[in-house]
Amino acid sequence: MLKIAIIGVGTVGSSVAQILEDNKDIITARAGCELVPTIGVVSNLNKKRDVNIKLTDNIDEVLNDDSIDIVVELMGGVEKPFEVVKKALQKGKAVVTANKALLAYHRYDLQDAAGDVAFEYEAAVAGGIPIINALRDGLGANHILSIKGIMNGTCNYMLTKMINEGVPYDQILKESQELGYAEADPTFDVGGFDAAHKLLILASIAYGIDSKPEDILIEGIENISSADIDFATEFGYSIKLLAIAKKIGSTVELRVHPVFISKDEMIAKVDGVMNGVSVIGDKVGETMYYGPGAGGDATASAVIANIIDIARKGKGSPMLGYQIPLESNLTLASADSIETKYYLRLEVEDKSGVLAKIASILGDKDISIETMMQKPLGTDRANLLIATHICKEVNIKEALKQIENSGVVKAKPAMIRIEA
Amino acid sequence: MLKIAIIGVGTVGSSVAQILEDNKDIITARAGCELVPTIGVVSNLNKKRDVNIKLTDNIDEVLNDDSIDIVVELMGGVEKPFEVVKKALQKGKAVVTANKALLAYHRYDLQDAAGDVAFEYEAAVAGGIPIINALRDGLGANHILSIKGIMNGTCNYMLTKMINEGVPYDQILKESQELGYAEADPTFDVGGFDAAHKLLILASIAYGIDSKPEDILIEGIENISSADIDFATEFGYSIKLLAIAKKIGSTVELRVHPVFISKDEMIAKVDGVMNGVSVIGDKVGETMYYGPGAGGDATASAVIANIIDIARKGKGSPMLGYQIPLESNLTLASADSIETKYYLRLEVEDKSGVLAKIASILGDKDISIETMMQKPLGTDRANLLIATHICKEVNIKEALKQIENSGVVKAKPAMIRIEA
Repeated sequence: MLKIAIIGVGTVGSSVAQILEDNKDIITARAGCELVPTIGVVSNLNKKRDVNIKLTDNIDEVLNDDSIDIVVELMGGVEKPFEVVKKALQKGKAVVTANKALLAYHRYDLQDAAGDVAFEYEAAVAGGIPIINALRDGLGANHILSIKGIMNGTCNYMLTKMINEGVPYDQILKESQELGYAEADPTFDVGGFDAAHKLLILASIAYGIDSKPEDILIEGIENISSADIDFATEFGYSIKLLAIAKKIGSTVELRVHPVFISKDEMIAKVDGVMNGVSVIGDKVGETMYYGPGAGGDATASAVIANIIDIARKGKGSPMLGYQIPLESNLTLASADSIETKYYLRLEVEDKSGVLAKIASILGDKDISIETMMQKPLGTDRANLLIATHICKEVNIKEALKQIENSGVVKAKPAMIRIEA
Repeated sequence: MLKIAIIGVGTVGSSVAQILEDNKDIITARAGCELVPTIGVVSNLNKKRDVNIKLTDNIDEVLNDDSIDIVVELMGGVEKPFEVVKKALQKGKAVVTANKALLAYHRYDLQDAAGDVAFEYEAAVAGGIPIINALRDGLGANHILSIKGIMNGTCNYMLTKMINEGVPYDQILKESQELGYAEADPTFDVGGFDAAHKLLILASIAYGIDSKPEDILIEGIENISSADIDFATEFGYSIKLLAIAKKIGSTVELRVHPVFISKDEMIAKVDGVMNGVSVIGDKVGETMYYGPGAGGDATASAVIANIIDIARKGKGSPMLGYQIPLESNLTLASADSIETKYYLRLEVEDKSGVLAKIASILGDKDISIETMMQKPLGTDRANLLIATHICKEVNIKEALKQIENSGVVKAKPAMIRIEA
């Protein structure tokens, strides 16, 4: 029998306790021993909770109890759980966490603290999808060439509605907030930060890259307009917020931003609140993993998969693939080194000479145009929508700056990368 | 260091040896020791092969060599590999196989022979997709409610071309044979037998069901006509060959047949030669796994994932999830117990009274019609295309028999199940 403490008994914590009870028969059989949720730690003991375990508001009751084998950390935040998890590991307790923000900042510190003690976090990335399991085990024979993930259900729900039903951004954001898909302050989701946290975790496993959110390119979906949607539809693209890790030589690009992506790509077919992660291995080619990225039971399913794993292997089994990444000696690529195709939206005066000026700036920077659309905007303005061939990000940025300063555009130019 | 023998050095066997060499750095790191392909067994020593290992045509050189730790069986067939694998396991050698036909017939005998010796076969189901890994580990907290797989690339390629490009069956079969996607005798693929073998393997892991191909419903794609394609397109369906396992009470339905399935389902979006497996767990909901179902390197990727697994856990680690299935005390459901929606294609005389007769036969069997389409077929005939509401398979079969004997149809009625 292994005794489990749950720190943070909210939606996911309650589900963990409930599923360990509901599916006790199969979980015991598969773990090889009984897994017993014994105590839950909460900040407010007066709040009513629908769980059958003893509750305390004193975390030391868990940390100082030598009979607790596994600590499940679901308290949220970064610095407080960092202290708690570190202490639990130092006391030899295995830890399972679903806390992506904690891992985005402290995964290497915590792995060091863990040493040989088990420390697992399948649920921190893409909820119920066993993507870490696939990277650690199923794809072990491969160098990972790229990972592309739709890992924020809120953004994907909003973009799907914008593309499929033409709902404008502000309206769908409001709807998402009413449905509980988006927070009152939606920045963490729509700004790409949530997806970035998950990307950093996958990048550690695949590439051994110890980057923080501040180190990488993160752009959100806030500026996507109906003109962008029209252009995407016209040219067979979907728009997705992708978290991308790409191995290029001995560097790894890590970036989160909206992309134009062909509707025919499997990852582009992941719609609504669902998550999907496409992984390209040098030998297996593309595999993709699809499922619910959030929700109490789905997330708890992944937490319990880790608990079963620890029960089978014993507490002394750290995360394989972490200390031994799929790659070694890789460094983070500079955001300026990106080369891809770009979509540009330029609000211009509808008069002669404008296109010539823009074409000349782009040409000077070695940027060639693949497709273009001009759409009138009221009386004397138009949206000039341009997709380029592959070019250098640094050139695009310089060109956009020149265009902005040239006097021919009436608003800040918008740019979305095209994922080829 | 672990020494590996490869029995059967064809496309997959050569890839296994090559990848162990190409990706030696990461594979050694992840396995925790060196994995060395040492000897290959072939039937014809004179055939030129592009591998760097010693070859023999004497299988006893492997079986009697105590220094061989892991045997990779890739010889094909059923009875001969059964003897070889059994002997290897009895001699304490871990075995990895990609041989689905062997497993469809002898997986329980071999697991018995294996006892505590490792016996793994990720590559036998859906090629490079780590679906067995997901079922054994990632979804361990769940009762599995259903598995729906597109696990035959040949059929999926053909059906995709038929639906998307309107190519008729005979022409696309010929094309597939020319491209090497289909065999000269395509029965094993287009008849659904290959998919059935894979389904039986997954059903053992999820449900502990020891069925043979002869025990379950297997129908192929040979009779799908352009009228069926038209109807599917009209009503928003795709047509897929699905391998289905469904838990219903204490029984499990296992069946392979073409289905009409809504184009909006994720599994319906798996096109071309690719494979996809959708799994519904009682807690996590639907997750789906997508990737290449065939090919030397993709299949070898899965073989090597198993070899790494054995290296990590030691040879004494039988397939978890096999002896301890996700469910227990389940029995195979009778094929007559199926209840679903049905699509019927009836070639009728284009005259009054025919529809009344057919409607009356269906009504008598409690079969109600959801949608219907009549399409003229030359001078005096028509195709009557009907989709029913949910009804009993046994009633559909009796109704079709009565319709066939009623004198109003000019050809054997066709039926395709609709997956809701």
